[in-house]
Amino acid sequence: MSGRIRNHRMASKVVEADEAARLIPAGANVGMSGFTGAGYPKEVPGALAKRLAEANASGDPMRVSLWTGASTAPELDGALAEADGIELRLPYQSDPVSREKINSGAMDYTDIHLSHVAQRVWQGFLGPLDVAVVEISGITEDGRLIPSSSVGNNKTWIDQADRVILEVNSWQSEQLEGMHDIYYGTALPPHRNPIPLTEPGDRIGVPHLECPPEKVVAVVETESPDRNTVFKEPDEVSRMIAGHVLDFLGSEVRHGRLPQDLLPLQSGVGNVANAVLAGLGDGPFHELTAYTEVIQDGMLDLIDSGTLRTVSATAFSLSPAAVERFNNNAADYRERILLRPQEISNHPEVVRRLGCLAMNGIVEADIYGNINSTHMMGSRVQNGIGGSGDFARNAYTSIFVTPSTAKSGAISTIVPMVSHVDHTEHDVDVLVTEQGAADLRGLAPRQRARKIIEHCAHPDFRPALRDYYERSLAGSHGGHTPHLLDESLSWHVKYLREGTMRA
Amino acid sequence: MSGRIRNHRMASKVVEADEAARLIPAGANVGMSGFTGAGYPKEVPGALAKRLAEANASGDPMRVSLWTGASTAPELDGALAEADGIELRLPYQSDPVSREKINSGAMDYTDIHLSHVAQRVWQGFLGPLDVAVVEISGITEDGRLIPSSSVGNNKTWIDQADRVILEVNSWQSEQLEGMHDIYYGTALPPHRNPIPLTEPGDRIGVPHLECPPEKVVAVVETESPDRNTVFKEPDEVSRMIAGHVLDFLGSEVRHGRLPQDLLPLQSGVGNVANAVLAGLGDGPFHELTAYTEVIQDGMLDLIDSGTLRTVSATAFSLSPAAVERFNNNAADYRERILLRPQEISNHPEVVRRLGCLAMNGIVEADIYGNINSTHMMGSRVQNGIGGSGDFARNAYTSIFVTPSTAKSGAISTIVPMVSHVDHTEHDVDVLVTEQGAADLRGLAPRQRARKIIEHCAHPDFRPALRDYYERSLAGSHGGHTPHLLDESLSWHVKYLREGTMRA
Repeated sequence: MSGRIRNHRMASKVVEADEAARLIPAGANVGMSGFTGAGYPKEVPGALAKRLAEANASGDPMRVSLWTGASTAPELDGALAEADGIELRLPYQSDPVSREKINSGAMDYTDIHLSHVAQRVWQGFLGPLDVAVVEISGITEDGRLIPSSSVGNNKTWIDQADRVILEVNSWQSEQLEGMHDIYYGTALPPHRNPIPLTEPGDRIGVPHLECPPEKVVAVVETESPDRNTVFKEPDEVSRMIAGHVLDFLGSEVRHGRLPQDLLPLQSGVGNVANAVLAGLGDGPFHELTAYTEVIQDGMLDLIDSGTLRTVSATAFSLSPAAVERFNNNAADYRERILLRPQEISNHPEVVRRLGCLAMNGIVEADIYGNINSTHMMGSRVQNGIGGSGDFARNAYTSIFVTPSTAKSGAISTIVPMVSHVDHTEHDVDVLVTEQGAADLRGLAPRQRARKIIEHCAHPDFRPALRDYYERSLAGSHGGHTPHLLDESLSWHVKYLREGTMRA
Repeated sequence: MSGRIRNHRMASKVVEADEAARLIPAGANVGMSGFTGAGYPKEVPGALAKRLAEANASGDPMRVSLWTGASTAPELDGALAEADGIELRLPYQSDPVSREKINSGAMDYTDIHLSHVAQRVWQGFLGPLDVAVVEISGITEDGRLIPSSSVGNNKTWIDQADRVILEVNSWQSEQLEGMHDIYYGTALPPHRNPIPLTEPGDRIGVPHLECPPEKVVAVVETESPDRNTVFKEPDEVSRMIAGHVLDFLGSEVRHGRLPQDLLPLQSGVGNVANAVLAGLGDGPFHELTAYTEVIQDGMLDLIDSGTLRTVSATAFSLSPAAVERFNNNAADYRERILLRPQEISNHPEVVRRLGCLAMNGIVEADIYGNINSTHMMGSRVQNGIGGSGDFARNAYTSIFVTPSTAKSGAISTIVPMVSHVDHTEHDVDVLVTEQGAADLRGLAPRQRARKIIEHCAHPDFRPALRDYYERSLAGSHGGHTPHLLDESLSWHVKYLREGTMRA
């Protein structure tokens, strides 16, 4: 019995990954762990992919529907998509192979607010959850499960699945035990109660996942690392965006609209988000908190420097160097970091109560402040909406960030009309590019347009945006949100035809 | 001293409306009561409009910014807009004169989720609230205010305003006293606590509005009715839509996804909503509850018939006949009806917890399930988003309803791409027209398109929608949400040019 499996009954269920994968029936709905490349199963998906590929090659096709927390890694999403083994994928993914299959029509993808997933599964209209495949970092003597580097929807998968396959990953730090806060108080209406969380650091649950032992049909042992990607230093554009965000926050404090220690930060994943975090490390703010989805390298830095007091999230997404740093100091970090189920990390009730400052990246914005977070040129999905809607709608202040151009300047990310909408004008408080910040709060559409064009758009595209807006003022059917509908998407059409939005 | 003003100090402040209106300075931010034509001040707005019109005619222009609960009536919104007296209007309106001014660019309008308004005013970035003008139905001996036929943002206006003008309306039933539940537990973060409401009928506050007497600069007495509009019997199309909604709810109960007494109903205002309520009266459901914004005639019927056990709302919107019925039985209704501030009636925390069944009307939907609730042909605002976003995003099931055509069949309300988005594909569970219902839950965009075209679109428009969709499948940049961007808004362009979307 491995040191990670301290329960005899569970130890007796250890099998090879191939054997475990054979327990997943054709056509099954499979709930797997994994959030932002952390805590996903490492062995069973590959074995399942092999089985699916063989079945598909043999003329007896076999597919499954795959539900996760959020994005995983090539050895999960990539392998299953490569095998043409996924019927329907939800609620978020970022895998390049899957993206191709989805956009070629070979695979269906349902893009859901991350806080909505658990209740939608309980509601039952997605069908039964046949099998859960969940990575954990260990099993206690009495059979409780020690979660891994992400929590995601694991509680729900284990509760809802008919059968559970566990992957015990001894690569994960043993020090993770005690860091998680698994809340078992959620329910379907009319049996819901207030979620008793009023500070990001509040512990409202238990540190372990609970699973009836009879549900566990297989346990697989692994020692494989998460998809940890190397941390890139922020580039100049990201640093400029971060600077505008920090200026805005500072101004809010000076105007008495934010306390000196701000409000709990939510930060999307990526280069710009990391730059904002890096900027906070240099800034005048102390004793901050974060109530967010993902803990990136920058958050560890802020904890180390004392800028950040507490971080609540549902997953890590660290570089290999940061993982090492974390493992060497896990006991200290455990005082300041909590990992929760994503239904709690992203819960509208809690986000609204805490008053998060939500910062999320986008694909494009239009001159009236509508946001496209997901679709290239209106039709090609990139990743998904993730938790941005959970946070933006309920935030104290919702901030969206993007470089003002893309594709080496061929694309303006500020367009007359977005080609797809994920966040409406009603949910967008502040828009920031490297050019500046547009504070849209309380403004009517025409006021927003002038501010976005002059503060956020790249100077190369400003004349054409002004021209569109002025002509819309004159020629629009209605003047509340002036548009020329035969021209409003012409920038995208031009890009598709000529490879550039430039005149 | 009138029988409605039982406090001596307040009685000493009674003045004529003209005098009260002179206490409103030029350029002021003015918060007025009023929600769906109920409980708005009847006298001071007209006096203010006269003053503004005179100033504007004299070459010394004067305007105010007007904040309310939601829509009011011609003698408020209409009179002030007619006088060109409104600089900025928020958060919702439905007045025809205002609509013209907004769409001609003469007046700015900020369309805000109704649950967001109070916190945005507290946050302070809309500027100070200079004056509140609030209708009440009486003043108690110790100076507490008995609310009127709507609560809306009145608590916030009174709390935030420098000066308060009260209109005591003795047309309102004295029996309203005790029906309201004013919750004083909200705060700005980081001082927020759970809202202790777990059933629609829970009383969590007090029956009166509190106002420091020194803030009250004037009291005006009135005896004028609300904008009660005559109730129209549902037409055939509305009855068919209602039938599909009721079939859907029945099917959910049979599948075990809804309890027999359903979950708290939220129902938008209008003909279709009333038809659904009428249908519920004939249906198999009993002991229902509603957690909604507005109490229409249909809700009173359901209370009378015993179908509806409890209704929580923020306002009435009754016909004259229903008002009379209410007044004759107010004591009984008071056992079953609560009126709350709109920050509570629409609060995402509460809507999510209760698991509302949200039913709202729309302007148009597209084949992928995106919803336009506000803009005609993408630019001309009709009313506003109101509370539809508060409810739809957080509902247990969000249902959107519309006739499949408008303008005598010239417009298809199911289009290739909506011309404005208020509710994204992520927030739309079920779309219903008189043609049928499309249950979109868990579906990917391509699956949704087929379902919406075949179940919801008018048969006259189905071939053209199928044709667009099939050609998009072949010619789209990406295949997740197939679109031909040079054609996606062409139905709207055609309507603007030719007055019809028909081929």
